Amino acid sequence: MAPHREGSDASVEAMVAQVEKHPISSILIIIAMQTEALPVVNKFQLIENPHSSFPKGVPWIHYHGAYKDIIINLVWPGKDLTFGVDGVGTISASLVTYASIQALQPDLIINAGTAGGFKEKAAAIGDVFLVSHVAFHDRRIPIPVFDLYGVGLRQTYSTPNLLKALNLKTGKLSTGDSLDMSPHDEASIAANDATVKDMEGAAVAYVAELLKVPAIFVKAVTDIVDGEKPTAEEFLQNLAAVTATLEEVVTQVIDFISGKCLPEL
Amino acid sequence: MAPHREGSDASVEAMVAQVEKHPISSILIIIAMQTEALPVVNKFQLIENPHSSFPKGVPWIHYHGAYKDIIINLVWPGKDLTFGVDGVGTISASLVTYASIQALQPDLIINAGTAGGFKEKAAAIGDVFLVSHVAFHDRRIPIPVFDLYGVGLRQTYSTPNLLKALNLKTGKLSTGDSLDMSPHDEASIAANDATVKDMEGAAVAYVAELLKVPAIFVKAVTDIVDGEKPTAEEFLQNLAAVTATLEEVVTQVIDFISGKCLPEL
Repeated sequence: MAPHREGSDASVEAMVAQVEKHPISSILIIIAMQTEALPVVNKFQLIENPHSSFPKGVPWIHYHGAYKDIIINLVWPGKDLTFGVDGVGTISASLVTYASIQALQPDLIINAGTAGGFKEKAAAIGDVFLVSHVAFHDRRIPIPVFDLYGVGLRQTYSTPNLLKALNLKTGKLSTGDSLDMSPHDEASIAANDATVKDMEGAAVAYVAELLKVPAIFVKAVTDIVDGEKPTAEEFLQNLAAVTATLEEVVTQVIDFISGKCLPEL
Repeated sequence: MAPHREGSDASVEAMVAQVEKHPISSILIIIAMQTEALPVVNKFQLIENPHSSFPKGVPWIHYHGAYKDIIINLVWPGKDLTFGVDGVGTISASLVTYASIQALQPDLIINAGTAGGFKEKAAAIGDVFLVSHVAFHDRRIPIPVFDLYGVGLRQTYSTPNLLKALNLKTGKLSTGDSLDMSPHDEASIAANDATVKDMEGAAVAYVAELLKVPAIFVKAVTDIVDGEKPTAEEFLQNLAAVTATLEEVVTQVIDFISGKCLPEL
């Protein structure tokens, strides 16, 4: 399904109107895992900012650099202080998105990362999707209106020219804090009409909307959720190869963005 | 189960050491719902701060006031800008906890709210629990160590004297973003040995630990999860009465805290 031109939020549109007349000068790339982030860091020769505006003691890492006429900021949540693993999931993603927007005031957010794909929706390993809509699949609140808040369906910032130029696939993304998929999750993912499933996207979209920054979502498929292999095994097996593909597409996105204003995307 | 004196995190202890020699002067109460917050706001005659340090446009509400020798700050996430309902759940709770700590630098956080209780663990409607441990029940990541990160088991800041003085019940809290309970959630809640179940606690604990602020959790039971009635119905039925009880206990907690240093709690 092709994304529509209309944004879902009038205030985002108002903010966009302010910046739409000059070329995009600063982007913020939010990535959850180091393995996903490093190929992009290396590609653009980003360097770690030891004086980030983040509070003392948090593990969040800010890389930055210049590429053509764009300041590239890349933030990942770092290694969890207690458990030592990448800070995946919606809470870390929300916090770093919030803190990074406050510190960096980007023109555009790109949430890039790996995802599970549904073969029933024509997703295959290595496919890269530019997401049209995001929603949550693990926030079930069966009270009127709270149910809709829980699902949190949002249209992403629409970039039809980017989609066409890069010949990317598009589809809806469903987000939850589990790598696996319970039967309840499965029903919600189906209700969300999702082609891809991740652990951060809808949270990044929520915070981006809250702070009125347009956000796009580039998700590369590491595993087929409705396939034969267990998700965790397939995910780990394909992670390195798929993150290389993800880096290539993120590079193409940044090349396309360069010199353009938001409405030209 | 009685909480232990030892904190789970050396850095929290270090921070606590700095402030433990003077009486607690500033507390931050995090509450998810307006219905839960207003009795406390009214009791302490807190007033809304129209000049909060929160970013322009966010719906978060900061109330403040003085009571005895303590500055009381109460923050709730406000009404969701898109859906108009209270911003319940872990993402809003994480964001307001983060932003409030940054803005207010409290000595102690009190996360107060309603919860579901398990009758199998001797919880009854109207019971108020002082939580000993928190964990998540809807973050299943079946990869070694990531699994532990997902569960995020944390001991709360230990307040044995407060527990004894107020004669409160204690137990473990399990947090998830759904009001209902799927079979997968149920298995995780059992593994977490939880007596009470909410939608914010473990997220508040995560952020409090990240920013090294001691946090305690006061949870009042609105519904029996392993009982006969549907959760949503029972929750709405008991919400008003139980929030009155919650306000009484929060008042007792603040009265007990007044004039004391952290190690005396």
